Amino acid sequence: MDERRDELIEAALQLFSTRSPEDVSIDDVAAKAGASRALVYHYFGGKNELYIAALGSAAKHLSVLLEPPTEGKPLERLRISLKRYFDFVESHAAGYTALLRGGPADRSGEAGEIVDGIRRLLLDRILHSLDVDVPPPILRITLRCWMATVETAGLDWLENRDVSRPDLERLLVDQLVVIMQISGRHDPGTGALFDRLAHEEMSH
Amino acid sequence: MDERRDELIEAALQLFSTRSPEDVSIDDVAAKAGASRALVYHYFGGKNELYIAALGSAAKHLSVLLEPPTEGKPLERLRISLKRYFDFVESHAAGYTALLRGGPADRSGEAGEIVDGIRRLLLDRILHSLDVDVPPPILRITLRCWMATVETAGLDWLENRDVSRPDLERLLVDQLVVIMQISGRHDPGTGALFDRLAHEEMSH
Repeated sequence: MDERRDELIEAALQLFSTRSPEDVSIDDVAAKAGASRALVYHYFGGKNELYIAALGSAAKHLSVLLEPPTEGKPLERLRISLKRYFDFVESHAAGYTALLRGGPADRSGEAGEIVDGIRRLLLDRILHSLDVDVPPPILRITLRCWMATVETAGLDWLENRDVSRPDLERLLVDQLVVIMQISGRHDPGTGALFDRLAHEEMSH
Repeated sequence: MDERRDELIEAALQLFSTRSPEDVSIDDVAAKAGASRALVYHYFGGKNELYIAALGSAAKHLSVLLEPPTEGKPLERLRISLKRYFDFVESHAAGYTALLRGGPADRSGEAGEIVDGIRRLLLDRILHSLDVDVPPPILRITLRCWMATVETAGLDWLENRDVSRPDLERLLVDQLVVIMQISGRHDPGTGALFDRLAHEEMSH
């Protein structure tokens, strides 16, 4: 009956995409999935477990979406990944905001671990796609900060929507290029990586 | 007896600076302040209230620390504020990490509101010191993202300490300069602001 469980999670995610977790009840999820309240309790025991399961499912979905493109030049791969990230942000709007707004401060321990896990996974993915095993500190910091920039831009976009998504995505790509370049002036390893990527970008 | 209350908060903050909130007990705070357990309960009712009071006090301290310097050129003012921010990060290490990375599962929304309040205050301060009333969206996003960058760099520094603080502060200043510049290419208002700041920086 795992299929039934998946349907309940899917119903919960759809509700969390437009309402914050505290505004979604077990009854809402049951009604949305055409299931009984008892069935939801049977699978999840309670609302918090359902929330954590839904969050884990969304995190898995994001990690699949963000499997690094293997084709194309560096900036094209970056553009594709960023577009996929914002597709995710847009389709999980309320949940994304509820989870990240106020920084990690509103998250319970488990939810925080899922978010931190995704961040670590994405950082590892980025480093892997750059052929970097152990990043120099400046590179690690620069990439972590840029990821925080993307999260913050995602929250701001959902809140204000006064910049178009394509414009925002272009801004974030441009920002990464210039911060990688300036970080390269603070650290030779990061500088060599920037030069290699720039060279790859220019070649045909 | 507000003085006594302040002493209890100060004791709590000192404990939170080296241990995460869940590892600090009411007894620890009482012992540190040379007070009775009953007095702590008298003033705060419980550990969560004490935690929120301590957090509010730290937030107030940070907001005073970060009153914008009025003297000096733009980059010098930025350097001073960033140094003060990292002084705060360093002296509130454990609390800063616990708050921004996650922490006790029973943390209420109040902590999140304090963090968001500080972010809004700092953004308003930055805009005010730039003589900007209503920021163009691109400028607002750029500044919010850079503030997230500073928070993330603070967390990374406390976790790894493999870059010196002055080096990290210089990196963050340089990053702000280049992202303001590139954002200026996406938005005329931000571009005009960047040009004005650059001009101010060059003049004597």
